[in-house]
Amino acid sequence: MDYRIEKDTMGEVKVPADKYWGAQTERSRNNFKIGSSASMPLEVVYGFAYLKKAAAYTNHELGVLTIEKRDLIASVCDEILTGKHDDQFPLVIWQTGSGTQSNMNVNEVVANRAHELAGKTIGEGEKTIQPNDDVNKSQSSNDTFPTGMHIAAYKKIIDVTIPGVEQLRDTLQKKSDEFNKVVKIGRTHLMDATPLTLGQEFSGYVAQLNHGLKALKNTLSHLSELALGGTAVGTGLNTPKGYDVLVAKYIAEFTGLPFVTAKNKFEALAAHDAIVESHGALKQLAVSLNKIANDIRMMASGPRSGIGEIIIPANEPGSSIMPGKVNPTQCEAMTMVCAQVIGNDVAISVGGTQGHYELNVFKPMMAANILQSAQLLGDACISFDVNCAAGIEPNHDTIKTLLNNSLMLVTALNTKIGYYKAAEIANTAHKNGTTLKEEAINLGHVTSKEYDEWVKPEDMVGGLK
Amino acid sequence: MDYRIEKDTMGEVKVPADKYWGAQTERSRNNFKIGSSASMPLEVVYGFAYLKKAAAYTNHELGVLTIEKRDLIASVCDEILTGKHDDQFPLVIWQTGSGTQSNMNVNEVVANRAHELAGKTIGEGEKTIQPNDDVNKSQSSNDTFPTGMHIAAYKKIIDVTIPGVEQLRDTLQKKSDEFNKVVKIGRTHLMDATPLTLGQEFSGYVAQLNHGLKALKNTLSHLSELALGGTAVGTGLNTPKGYDVLVAKYIAEFTGLPFVTAKNKFEALAAHDAIVESHGALKQLAVSLNKIANDIRMMASGPRSGIGEIIIPANEPGSSIMPGKVNPTQCEAMTMVCAQVIGNDVAISVGGTQGHYELNVFKPMMAANILQSAQLLGDACISFDVNCAAGIEPNHDTIKTLLNNSLMLVTALNTKIGYYKAAEIANTAHKNGTTLKEEAINLGHVTSKEYDEWVKPEDMVGGLK
Amino acid sequence: MDYRIEKDTMGEVKVPADKYWGAQTERSRNNFKIGSSASMPLEVVYGFAYLKKAAAYTNHELGVLTIEKRDLIASVCDEILTGKHDDQFPLVIWQTGSGTQSNMNVNEVVANRAHELAGKTIGEGEKTIQPNDDVNKSQSSNDTFPTGMHIAAYKKIIDVTIPGVEQLRDTLQKKSDEFNKVVKIGRTHLMDATPLTLGQEFSGYVAQLNHGLKALKNTLSHLSELALGGTAVGTGLNTPKGYDVLVAKYIAEFTGLPFVTAKNKFEALAAHDAIVESHGALKQLAVSLNKIANDIRMMASGPRSGIGEIIIPANEPGSSIMPGKVNPTQCEAMTMVCAQVIGNDVAISVGGTQGHYELNVFKPMMAANILQSAQLLGDACISFDVNCAAGIEPNHDTIKTLLNNSLMLVTALNTKIGYYKAAEIANTAHKNGTTLKEEAINLGHVTSKEYDEWVKPEDMVGGLK
Amino acid sequence: MDYRIEKDTMGEVKVPADKYWGAQTERSRNNFKIGSSASMPLEVVYGFAYLKKAAAYTNHELGVLTIEKRDLIASVCDEILTGKHDDQFPLVIWQTGSGTQSNMNVNEVVANRAHELAGKTIGEGEKTIQPNDDVNKSQSSNDTFPTGMHIAAYKKIIDVTIPGVEQLRDTLQKKSDEFNKVVKIGRTHLMDATPLTLGQEFSGYVAQLNHGLKALKNTLSHLSELALGGTAVGTGLNTPKGYDVLVAKYIAEFTGLPFVTAKNKFEALAAHDAIVESHGALKQLAVSLNKIANDIRMMASGPRSGIGEIIIPANEPGSSIMPGKVNPTQCEAMTMVCAQVIGNDVAISVGGTQGHYELNVFKPMMAANILQSAQLLGDACISFDVNCAAGIEPNHDTIKTLLNNSLMLVTALNTKIGYYKAAEIANTAHKNGTTLKEEAINLGHVTSKEYDEWVKPEDMVGGLK
Repeated sequence: MDYRIEKDTMGEVKVPADKYWGAQTERSRNNFKIGSSASMPLEVVYGFAYLKKAAAYTNHELGVLTIEKRDLIASVCDEILTGKHDDQFPLVIWQTGSGTQSNMNVNEVVANRAHELAGKTIGEGEKTIQPNDDVNKSQSSNDTFPTGMHIAAYKKIIDVTIPGVEQLRDTLQKKSDEFNKVVKIGRTHLMDATPLTLGQEFSGYVAQLNHGLKALKNTLSHLSELALGGTAVGTGLNTPKGYDVLVAKYIAEFTGLPFVTAKNKFEALAAHDAIVESHGALKQLAVSLNKIANDIRMMASGPRSGIGEIIIPANEPGSSIMPGKVNPTQCEAMTMVCAQVIGNDVAISVGGTQGHYELNVFKPMMAANILQSAQLLGDACISFDVNCAAGIEPNHDTIKTLLNNSLMLVTALNTKIGYYKAAEIANTAHKNGTTLKEEAINLGHVTSKEYDEWVKPEDMVGGLK
Repeated sequence: MDYRIEKDTMGEVKVPADKYWGAQTERSRNNFKIGSSASMPLEVVYGFAYLKKAAAYTNHELGVLTIEKRDLIASVCDEILTGKHDDQFPLVIWQTGSGTQSNMNVNEVVANRAHELAGKTIGEGEKTIQPNDDVNKSQSSNDTFPTGMHIAAYKKIIDVTIPGVEQLRDTLQKKSDEFNKVVKIGRTHLMDATPLTLGQEFSGYVAQLNHGLKALKNTLSHLSELALGGTAVGTGLNTPKGYDVLVAKYIAEFTGLPFVTAKNKFEALAAHDAIVESHGALKQLAVSLNKIANDIRMMASGPRSGIGEIIIPANEPGSSIMPGKVNPTQCEAMTMVCAQVIGNDVAISVGGTQGHYELNVFKPMMAANILQSAQLLGDACISFDVNCAAGIEPNHDTIKTLLNNSLMLVTALNTKIGYYKAAEIANTAHKNGTTLKEEAINLGHVTSKEYDEWVKPEDMVGGLK
Repeated sequence: MDYRIEKDTMGEVKVPADKYWGAQTERSRNNFKIGSSASMPLEVVYGFAYLKKAAAYTNHELGVLTIEKRDLIASVCDEILTGKHDDQFPLVIWQTGSGTQSNMNVNEVVANRAHELAGKTIGEGEKTIQPNDDVNKSQSSNDTFPTGMHIAAYKKIIDVTIPGVEQLRDTLQKKSDEFNKVVKIGRTHLMDATPLTLGQEFSGYVAQLNHGLKALKNTLSHLSELALGGTAVGTGLNTPKGYDVLVAKYIAEFTGLPFVTAKNKFEALAAHDAIVESHGALKQLAVSLNKIANDIRMMASGPRSGIGEIIIPANEPGSSIMPGKVNPTQCEAMTMVCAQVIGNDVAISVGGTQGHYELNVFKPMMAANILQSAQLLGDACISFDVNCAAGIEPNHDTIKTLLNNSLMLVTALNTKIGYYKAAEIANTAHKNGTTLKEEAINLGHVTSKEYDEWVKPEDMVGGLK
Repeated sequence: MDYRIEKDTMGEVKVPADKYWGAQTERSRNNFKIGSSASMPLEVVYGFAYLKKAAAYTNHELGVLTIEKRDLIASVCDEILTGKHDDQFPLVIWQTGSGTQSNMNVNEVVANRAHELAGKTIGEGEKTIQPNDDVNKSQSSNDTFPTGMHIAAYKKIIDVTIPGVEQLRDTLQKKSDEFNKVVKIGRTHLMDATPLTLGQEFSGYVAQLNHGLKALKNTLSHLSELALGGTAVGTGLNTPKGYDVLVAKYIAEFTGLPFVTAKNKFEALAAHDAIVESHGALKQLAVSLNKIANDIRMMASGPRSGIGEIIIPANEPGSSIMPGKVNPTQCEAMTMVCAQVIGNDVAISVGGTQGHYELNVFKPMMAANILQSAQLLGDACISFDVNCAAGIEPNHDTIKTLLNNSLMLVTALNTKIGYYKAAEIANTAHKNGTTLKEEAINLGHVTSKEYDEWVKPEDMVGGLK
């Protein structure tokens, strides 16, 4: 392979000749061979591209960067955002906990590519743009990485998670409406209980997701706070006056998202409670989605020896050995995602507890986990929606059979004959394998006419929904 | 021991003669010998007392309970709330997951005590008040337990957690103001960095707690939703019209807290995402408090061979073997609490995922964990505040020495001579064990006068706070 | 209340006159009002009683304690182990993370009670036995607390957890043998699959618990290592030669358990990986037990609208509103315990990560969590065994019906006619609501005779068990 | 793009013409667009390659597969193991929880590539080898996936984790020996304590890793048990007699690892406690490594305003804004890895709890997490070793200064003058800012000569190591 020489404050480093990155990126590549290469999420890189461009604009506007440098920096950032330099970011999550070398990776790529855009050859002549003094001007890794991380996480939640959850929620709402009159047996403790409609059951899922969406949106205000302007330790050393507010304004403009400068930069560097907070809401959604997916696979179980109250789409042969088998595979993908998100939440909490003094150095790990959770939840909702939820149909025959079998219809008699006599009827029918009506009459607690009048499943589902 | 006979739908049971509880409580006592007895939190019992009274008022107002029964039930509930019947609730957390027997425990105690209040003798004559038909009227365990759990958790957060965190926050704010001009070395990656004030450092803690309080308060709206009125499966079977709204109004009145009826009762029974949500915020506070307590013990470390920048109160002899030792014991209690809360969060998440069909049956475990976390965090904040935070003082001599030693003051030169030359100065001073100023001049990058003018720690702390 | 004055190196403290504890216990009581009082597990106190007695014997044998002092100390320790001083240990878990004041609590109680046993009056005259110089001789909190914690955890696992799990395992084995010939439908993905016997299903549970017991026993060797003899930082300062080995021998003798001195005392003070390791195995058991309890409640679900393949004992009325309802309450208690143990595991892991330098200061929290998990798992297994597992019976009729319905019996044809034709048969029968046999013949893939010969559920259950 | 038509039991599917995979792989690709594509770890694919080859050999030996088919299957498996077909496995983790389509992916690739090796053209003519009837012969996804997962996890632990941890352990042992005589201040509660040697401190780290390695190795016996031979539900339906034992023998031979057939196949399909068990040990190692890395960064903190007792290699410029800064970046990468592993442990535990009936359907998620943890821990240990641990040096001057400052040397006087007088000396020196010796003499407790004789740090470090 061909190499060129790049330098940093520690000396010379050989770098692949066809790459834009410089000495520090190369050092980090060599010093951190942990897991697959290039595991640092590209979303973080794009977050950096937004903020480097915004910093260049701000630095120029505040008089500390020439317009030529601003435009060169902005041009490379725009290129990065198109994805054309994706192979220029080889670093891993498991590097310095401040993400310093990922910041330098961006600084170096911008500087070298800008040199090229300025019509020169990489590695020849003084750099047109300096990685530290120009691209990183008025910045530190300590405020850029959390800024990039907030941009990435916020965008992911807005672009992937929320639309995914909403799409599934809308389908479940539609199903709830459709199934509005499908009276079925309820189940508590997995045991037969009083009836409700299938629509009511689905309305609970909708309510869970609505609560989860609200909880997630509640966290966005904290996540919209950007550390940029705090520089090394939060004091804003080496930034021009007004920089922090203005750079957040530019980031908001470039991303189209309501970012603002963090009210307290010390918190924004030393703690990542905003990530903890938003991920907590993602975890809540995982808890909800697990419940929903689990219910659906239980209700769809069978086809002949399970519950079988609903029918879900058959998307693929279910078994390599059992012919004709169909499985609730979307439910399984969803619940695996949920387990992962619950695990990721712990990783993020552990990282969050361990900020020391002016800096939390679990940044890349926290960023990677929230981005994974946000992506997986959004994607899994779409997949579950399209390939499962949208196709759910009631199995009316089974629903009716199971409903009419149930001993818990006796509950309707509580207010007529009291809990104790009602229990006697149910217990006797259970013991004898008979129907409630038979035993209700045999025991002399009600007449046949009363029974028919009082015990109507369709009257037991209330109007609460 | 003396016994009397109590009955339920399964038959007769011998119950200690001096207790108010009945057959179902006694069955549960015998069937669930798991962990210490009476582990079900009393706060849940008090939650039940509020709701049983509210149900009695509502049932009366809606015409399904006599005023005499209402008043008897309410009287016993009021007695329970004074704590005088605390020894009447012997059940454990680890019982049926719906808390059915804890509901029955309350029903039975109310019924038997009401019988007494009505001038009769327990165990003699027809019960004046029936546990199921009167005390439990228009209710199910499935809607009462979550209601009691929400009342208990909400009250604990309002009465203990929030005031505790706020008290500590206020002290930290006061300290931040006091330490406003105490310039000290900053530390990132645990390594010397550019300066900030001790007040700025503490302002970060204040910001963390403010964000945490806001996040916690954001969850209260979900937690204020009560399941009561959903009865067995969420449909409200066996409740009079208007019951759910009215009973929540009474609970709000009796507790002085803004409870409302849950918009969707199916969610309120089958999922406990409100508990997941509120505990998620408690966990976020634990993450923040861990960071704060950890910083404080590191800054207070020493007294002679550590960091020693602050002095914390000496509350007790620190060692049984090392004479004269003083330890950051409040920080240790706090961080142990934080670890517990992070663990509890997982227990709650796991429980939250496993609602099945119309009912989540991890209710008592979820209730116990959120109540423990809310109590411990509130108590630990007060303890930490009173016995540690309020007495924190800067160790000015050490702070000054460590500040002036630092090589990172060189950062002030970045904007004057560029990052590379500044690095050369710092590296040379580090290698030679000399001062920055010496090497800055030796290397010819600045004059002595420039150095003194440009490198002033007090000018490096910005005005961001 | 009456008080007496006690002193420590910080000065005088007023202590309740009727208590044996001294100044340091009282300070800790006042300084740590976090959660309920006296939450420090008594098992840890008993662990201290064993080790204080062993230390007294060792100190005497090595010539640094008189026989009179040895015997006085031992007498009080023996009294403590009878439980008669249980109300003398008022401290909480959430104190100093080394448990120093709990060590001093024991030292003080022993010293004051010994004074009494020596015929004197507490608070009068020179103490016969000094808390620090005699009771704590050759010890530090830093090595006593982990020793007490290991003794407590080891004993709990041996006395409660393992017997509990083994009792349940034995019952499941017995059931597996009993159900050896009960052929039933298998279920994968919750969907109908090929048959197995109910005995085979239960044999999987037995295998899980056997693996879990083996894993738990594997951890005991680490847990048997005692820190005692390391004193303050692991170097054994202020201990006589040979002390560490001998004191462990005495502890082994007094407890009847195979304790040994830790090979490396620095690890034994600064890390509590032995607790992490043993709790990891408890968590594995929780994972297994959750699976088992969940299966049993699903198989027992119904009675009429669920799976209903097994019948579990009806121990209590299941519902306060639904008469005659029976619920799988033991399964629910068990799965709540499992969720708690999984949460506790995280608390312990977090505590385990945070040893600093020569000491881990999450000791009381780690001790409390492992003791809770070990107790709950053992108790829950006994409760589950006695009240549920021992009474499980197959519901033969339902089992037979569900077996014969199943389309997955078609798998038996794979090796005769190939996977594709077998799938065609199953899919056609599913679509038409017909039987496999009908469609197998209709499609011309097999004759009636071949079908009857090839598709026999009882031949499909193998001999693997 | 060019396509060809592939078929399965559900019908025709268009597949990219240049890929070996078939209909079921393509369906899964389309149905599960969750997260990045091809996220299913290649290690699992290689595990499948081993087992498919072993199954072919076993099937042939037991008379149910021709030698020609055996050799074709084995040839493709060997090719897969070279990595040349890595781009033929496009599926994601988040698919069916049994990994059925990943099994089919391998079956399809083997079948189509075998067709080619047999000299034919893919998509033309009858397949030489059938995916289900030949490649998958005597197998089910339900037993192949857990087998592939065990092979992959076992190999990763043996090839990556254990060697990585051992290499770091060996370096720490070497450092412990080197630093054997470097007496330094000990620290408990982060506060000055009695002395020990730096070598003793490091010996604790070695002991932690040795215990962790032992714990990990203890789990391998469970992990060595293979599900293969259980087929669909554990009964071994459609396998020839003796198949399970023989196929495990072939896998052991091909991998060079001591795999055996699982004693109980029902457990091996329905539960993945072996993964829970092995990951529990990985988590324990994470806990230990976190402690070690944290200590090292605290001891290396500074260089001038921290602890500064050791010097770690400077591998890269530490800051993009602070010139000359060096950070403990390897410690940070390590602790981020540890946080991730602790999180992964929860994901695995949650997945482990949720086996239903005859099958756990969290297999791919569990596999991915254990493989990630095992890889990251091994890699991080090597990275930490090479780039940090191997270069650690004591900073003798600082060590000496901090040692001699310490007030805790007073502990040496306990056995001479008692704990109380020793405390008086320490407290007075602390208050007055004087030395222990001065105050010891001033207070009249010891003479100058006694002090010098009794208080020698080098005599206080014991011989325990």
